[in-house]
This record gives sequence, structure tokens and C-alpha cells, in this order.
Amino acid sequence: MTVENRVPILIEEAISRVMEHKREGEKEYVSIYHCNGRYLSEDIKAIHDVPKFNRSSYDGFALRAKDTNGASYEMPVEFEIIDEIGAGQVSTKKIGEYQAIRIMTGAMLPRDADAVIMLEKTVERKKNGQTYIKIDHMLHKGENISFQGEDVKKGEVLLKKGTKINPGVVAVLATFGIEQVPVAKKPTIGLFATGTELLEVHEELEEGKIRNSNAYMILAQIERAGAVPRYFGKLPDVMEISFEAIRQKIDSVDMLITTGGVSVGDYDLLPEIYRKLGAEVLFNKIAMRPGSVTTVANLNGKLLFGLSGNPSACYVGFELFTNPIIKSLLFIENPRLPIVDAVLKENFPDANSFTRLIRSRVSIVNGKIETRTSGMDKSNIVSSLASANGLTILPGGESGYKCGDIVKVILLEEVQNQLLL
Amino acid sequence: MTVENRVPILIEEAISRVMEHKREGEKEYVSIYHCNGRYLSEDIKAIHDVPKFNRSSYDGFALRAKDTNGASYEMPVEFEIIDEIGAGQVSTKKIGEYQAIRIMTGAMLPRDADAVIMLEKTVERKKNGQTYIKIDHMLHKGENISFQGEDVKKGEVLLKKGTKINPGVVAVLATFGIEQVPVAKKPTIGLFATGTELLEVHEELEEGKIRNSNAYMILAQIERAGAVPRYFGKLPDVMEISFEAIRQKIDSVDMLITTGGVSVGDYDLLPEIYRKLGAEVLFNKIAMRPGSVTTVANLNGKLLFGLSGNPSACYVGFELFTNPIIKSLLFIENPRLPIVDAVLKENFPDANSFTRLIRSRVSIVNGKIETRTSGMDKSNIVSSLASANGLTILPGGESGYKCGDIVKVILLEEVQNQLLL
Repeated sequence: MTVENRVPILIEEAISRVMEHKREGEKEYVSIYHCNGRYLSEDIKAIHDVPKFNRSSYDGFALRAKDTNGASYEMPVEFEIIDEIGAGQVSTKKIGEYQAIRIMTGAMLPRDADAVIMLEKTVERKKNGQTYIKIDHMLHKGENISFQGEDVKKGEVLLKKGTKINPGVVAVLATFGIEQVPVAKKPTIGLFATGTELLEVHEELEEGKIRNSNAYMILAQIERAGAVPRYFGKLPDVMEISFEAIRQKIDSVDMLITTGGVSVGDYDLLPEIYRKLGAEVLFNKIAMRPGSVTTVANLNGKLLFGLSGNPSACYVGFELFTNPIIKSLLFIENPRLPIVDAVLKENFPDANSFTRLIRSRVSIVNGKIETRTSGMDKSNIVSSLASANGLTILPGGESGYKCGDIVKVILLEEVQNQLLL
Repeated sequence: MTVENRVPILIEEAISRVMEHKREGEKEYVSIYHCNGRYLSEDIKAIHDVPKFNRSSYDGFALRAKDTNGASYEMPVEFEIIDEIGAGQVSTKKIGEYQAIRIMTGAMLPRDADAVIMLEKTVERKKNGQTYIKIDHMLHKGENISFQGEDVKKGEVLLKKGTKINPGVVAVLATFGIEQVPVAKKPTIGLFATGTELLEVHEELEEGKIRNSNAYMILAQIERAGAVPRYFGKLPDVMEISFEAIRQKIDSVDMLITTGGVSVGDYDLLPEIYRKLGAEVLFNKIAMRPGSVTTVANLNGKLLFGLSGNPSACYVGFELFTNPIIKSLLFIENPRLPIVDAVLKENFPDANSFTRLIRSRVSIVNGKIETRTSGMDKSNIVSSLASANGLTILPGGESGYKCGDIVKVILLEEVQNQLLL
């Protein structure tokens, strides 16, 4: 039996080797109704000022501020109402001394008016069929007006490419009449699971076999990362069949993931398949736990991710290596998951020469970030993945870590939903 | 002109009045392939132990730990290899003294074996066609074994209803063979925009008119909250037509949102429509900025949200009042958006009698949460919504706030993506 000799590299080095293949993906247009959650593939610039004209901020009366000079509770000033403008309407009347025009929120300010008084702050009366209002305080020029361009100036970059579209972004797109939104086309990521021991989710359990949880998990991770998953099923532990299956599918996807088959055991086929395909192996051993056997190879610019068959290692390998390269295809400038400082809330007394990535529950307590394991941290433990919202980094070395230490945590994309539970 | 007299209530009181209508929604089943991002409608319990049997954690050799007693670098112990088990296979051989069975990661531990030594830690040799390994250190009982039930015990609640399904949750579901996943049916939320001044996104700008950004924004907010939006278009500023349109659509949705038309001005129709429908108005004035005119009414158990026509007020009104009630329909136990403490990074010198909700950019700096305005905070400013990931709460009172104050921030659902930018 020949046991392959592998030299572990550092996590950062491994990520760098993958990220050398970073590139922007393809563009496509989707309707503004279906763009939420997608990523912009172009900078969006303002094609006009916002507001496009001076507008009233409130329901009230438009007038000339100088005419309120001297107005007080004891000495209110009276204005004649000469017109009425609904939102979307425009007044052609000219406002003169002690004249005002009734105006709705958002309506265009009439010529010569330079202030608006809120409806609630006036007292109205009719005299000979004519309406008048009394104002008991002075207004300054510009009061209650939204000025042309005060929100956005024409030509300004409003949204950078790579921005994830959220409801606020949609509001900006709608404001500028962008009905067809330029977004990143979702890359397609293929997936094979390896392992004769694996049963699909609908199959009955048999002695010695386990359900293939990795494949479904990775499909969801691909989707969460912003790509389209394509599941090609299981590969048998037979070299020729597996090689052919991979060779046939590789052209139909942007990247290919396999789970399992990357260890040093005799049944682990991937190293041999990479050789046979002529793929350049970027690394096949990383100084990290879990996931030290994670392998990434490059076949003519297409990346092949050989993730571990172990659920946690598989999960971590995807988030560390596959996720950022997907994000780069989505035009994101800084495609890596964010890393923050946090207070470690547990002891890890044992030293480990490899860097550990602990599936963690990150929470905000009194304005500070805390991190603790989300479950038992043996690498085969599936249940702790469900509640993990971060990966705590414990660098390898000669000593352990203790409660209260400041550590770095990689934030997963669920932070929000789980932050406070 | 009669100006309606409204008494403002506190935000908390307003939220409480809405949340009195909190209830669980309907259930449906979706395939495990399409469940990511949905919400579980039932507790998921373990139907068997995980692992279901004692398994090897590594590629290596299964043996009896006691046979390694006394093994050392100087005095290695030799074992005879009597069988080989691939993952998914089961050995029927009985392990005796100084015997071992070759075993793959995840394979079921053979009878009588109680430890596994990793392949890399052995030296192998052949002698007369028989394979032997040498071991140079002692193993303890249970070493490198994943024990039955150590991950999950049968009957344990693995996932609570209301859990948002993420890739880790999918892994758990797959492990237990749950192919059809019980999820909350997405509620349907209807939307009308009011305002003659509004142009749809594809229409050319005209003088005095503005594009209807609120409708598209709210559609995206509905989607982000986990519901299905249905846009019914614009209502004209004509009472009878608007009333009829609302009356006709209300039965087809779980809740109905209108934007605009809730102020005290003469063109604001919603108060009159609520009266005509016979809906009970829960409140129509809140001591908050923006959004003080937000109105919520109850028509036979169906909620009608009258959000402000002002973009920021509209946005905030949805997140404060509509989002949590949608979340309750998704079986979420604590349906309100999380609130955390943060360090305010700006001065707000002016006092305001109403509580302000500042569209904010929340970030984590050196393990602490900071908050600052995400743009100019005039309530008509659309562009600041795009980059907001939180709403900073500045309670109303007699004084302003200063940089360094500890304040509360409502986290929006984008925290993750924007946390570090």
C-alpha cells in the first residue's frame, strides 16, 4: 500500500492559491420585480437629480419665508390662499406678498415660494368665499422643502457593482426608472458525492451505511452563496466509472465539487482522477482541522473542489474555498466572508499544531461580540452545523485557549437570524 | 377643512397592538432540494441515534486497545490484519489478540474492536502473503471512534419549529431521511400604492411627478421577510374607486399594505376607507420619526397596514409593524427584529419629542458594535436606505445624543453582508 506523502500548507496560503483564479462572472438583466437578493453587475449612476425638483416635505402651504417676518403668537400674519396643488400637479400661479398655495407632500414647489408651513400649524378661515390662513411664527427660507438634488446628484455613483440587492437598493433602482436590472448571472456549480456507504435521503437505512447529508448540505451552501447547484448524484468507488462521470459533466458547469474520496486511504479516488484529467493540484493538505485533506485542482481554468467526506470538514471547506470564488463571479470586490474579533466564551485547554476552525455561535452581548461552540466540536457532528453562524479560528501552536481570550471569527451568512437567540 | 385630531402613542404600544394579532400560519411540505431559506413549521425530532452505530473516525485499523499496552517507539507491537472494511461494508470477523481489521472513515466498527489507529501512524509489512502493522504507542479505549448516539440521541428535538432552514439544518434533515420538509406556507401580502403623483418604473418622468419607489421597495421587503408579494398597482385619489379596489382584493391576501394616503391632508383617503370598510383602527399616530402617520387597522382578523408615502417612513413602518407579524406566521417564536446595544458614532445635538429611528450602518470594530447614519437622515432620502443595515433608536426627550453614547439598534436582515464594509 502506498500512502501518499502530503505537505500541509497554511490556510491563508491555500485561500490565496484559490483566489488567484478570482474573476468577474457573466452579466444578465432581470426585472426589478425579481432582483431582490441578486448582485449588481454594474455601477449604477444617477441619471437625474433626486428630488428632480424642489418639493414640499409636508402637507401644508407654500409661501415666501420673508412674509412671515415678525409673525408671533400675539401678532399672527394672515395669508391669502390663491391655489391648491395636489401631489403630481403643478401650479402656474405666481405667489405674491402674503399669498400662499395649498400644497401636498411631495408636490413641486411653486415659483417664488421658498418655504412650506405644515397644515397642522396654521389656522384657517373663510372670508367672502376666499380662504385665509394665520401663521403665528416665523419660517426660515427652505423650511420643509426637499431641494432638487439633495438626495442624489446626477452622475453620482449610487450603487457599486457587487452590491447585494436589498429592498433599499430596489428603492433606488425604481427611483431611477431601472426596470431591467444588470445583475451577475448565477454561476452553476456541479456536485458529485463519493462513497459506497452513502444512502440518498429517501433510502432506508442499512447496517453500516449512512445517509448522504453532505450532498444536500452543499447544494444549500451553493444556493446560499448565490449560485445554482446541479447535483449529479453519487460516484461509486470504481475508478473508471467515476473518472468518466466527472469528465462528462465538467464542461456543463463553472466549477465542480466532489465530497469524499480525498483522504489517503486506498478507496479515495479523487487524487488519481485529478492526475488522469491532467488537472493541476493547488494543494491537497492544509494545516487545519477539520478539513486537512481538502483538495483543490485547476483544470484549464475551471476549479475542482475535492471536499472532505466528513460533514464538518466538507462544510468548512466550502465556506473557506468555494464560497469566495463564487462571490468573485458575482462581482463582489471583497469576496471573502467577514472576520471579526470576538471574546471566546470557553476553554480549549489542549494545544493543536493545526489551526482549528470551531463551528460557533456568535452573539452580541452588551455591544460586544462573543463566540462559543455551537455544539460538540468533533468533526463528525452534524447537529452543531445547524446552529452555527460563525467559525472561530484557533491558530495552531503550542498552547490552548481560554475563556476571555480575544479570537478571530469568520461570520457565516446566517449571522442576522441567529445573532440574539 | 377638518383636520383629524390624532393622539400619538409610543412605538412599543403600537407594536404591542399589532402583535396581539400574532398567530401561527399554515403548513406545507417542500422537497429537501428546495427548502433552504424557508422556516420549519414543526419541531424535528431524531428518529434514530446519530451515528446509528459505532464508527471509525479515520482511515486506519480497528483493534482492541488493550493489545497496545506497552507499545512504544523502542518496543512496537505487531498486529495481524485479518480483514478489510470499506465504508458502507460490515465485517463479520471476530478480532482476537494482536489482530486488527483495516477500516475506512465512517465504516462500522467490527465486534470486539474498541479503538482505531490512523493509517498514517502505522508501519505495514507483508510476510508470507499476510499483512502486519507495527504500532509504536498505546491507544486508549474509544480512541478515534464516533460512538452511537454521540451526535444525536433518538427522540431528541433537533430543530425547533420557526427555525430558518440553512445548509446546516439541511444536513440534519438529510441525516434523518426527511425528504419532504414541513415548512411554513408563505403568507401572501397584497400591496396598493396611492398617489396621483406616482409614475411606475417604466414611465418617463414628468414635471411634478416622481417614480413610485415605495411599491418596489415594499415588494422586496415582503419577499425578504419570507412572504409572497402581490402588487395590485396604484390607487387613484378617488374615494369610490379606491374603496372598491381594496374591498375586492382583500379576500385574496393574508394582509394588505397601502403606501401613502394616511396623512391628515384632504387627499389622504385611507382613514375614510378604513371607516367605510368597518375596520378597527389600532392606531393612526405614533410618537416616532419618520412614520408618525403609520396606521394599522384590523378587518375581521385581517390586518391592513397604511404605511406612509414617504420612502423612509414607509420602509421603517414595514420593518417595525409588518415584518414581525409575517414572522409570526412563519412559526418564529420571537418574531421581532433583534435589538442590540451599540456605540453611537455621531452627534445628534437637537432634541426631539418623538423617538427617532435613524437609518444606520452598523459595523463591528474591534469586537464592538458601532452605529452611524447610513446617509443624510431626512425622511425623504431614498439613497440612505440602500446601505442601511440597522435602525438606531433615539428615544424622544429633552436633549440630543452625542458621539460615544450607548444606544439601541434594530438590526435589519442585511447585517451580514454589510457588516464590515
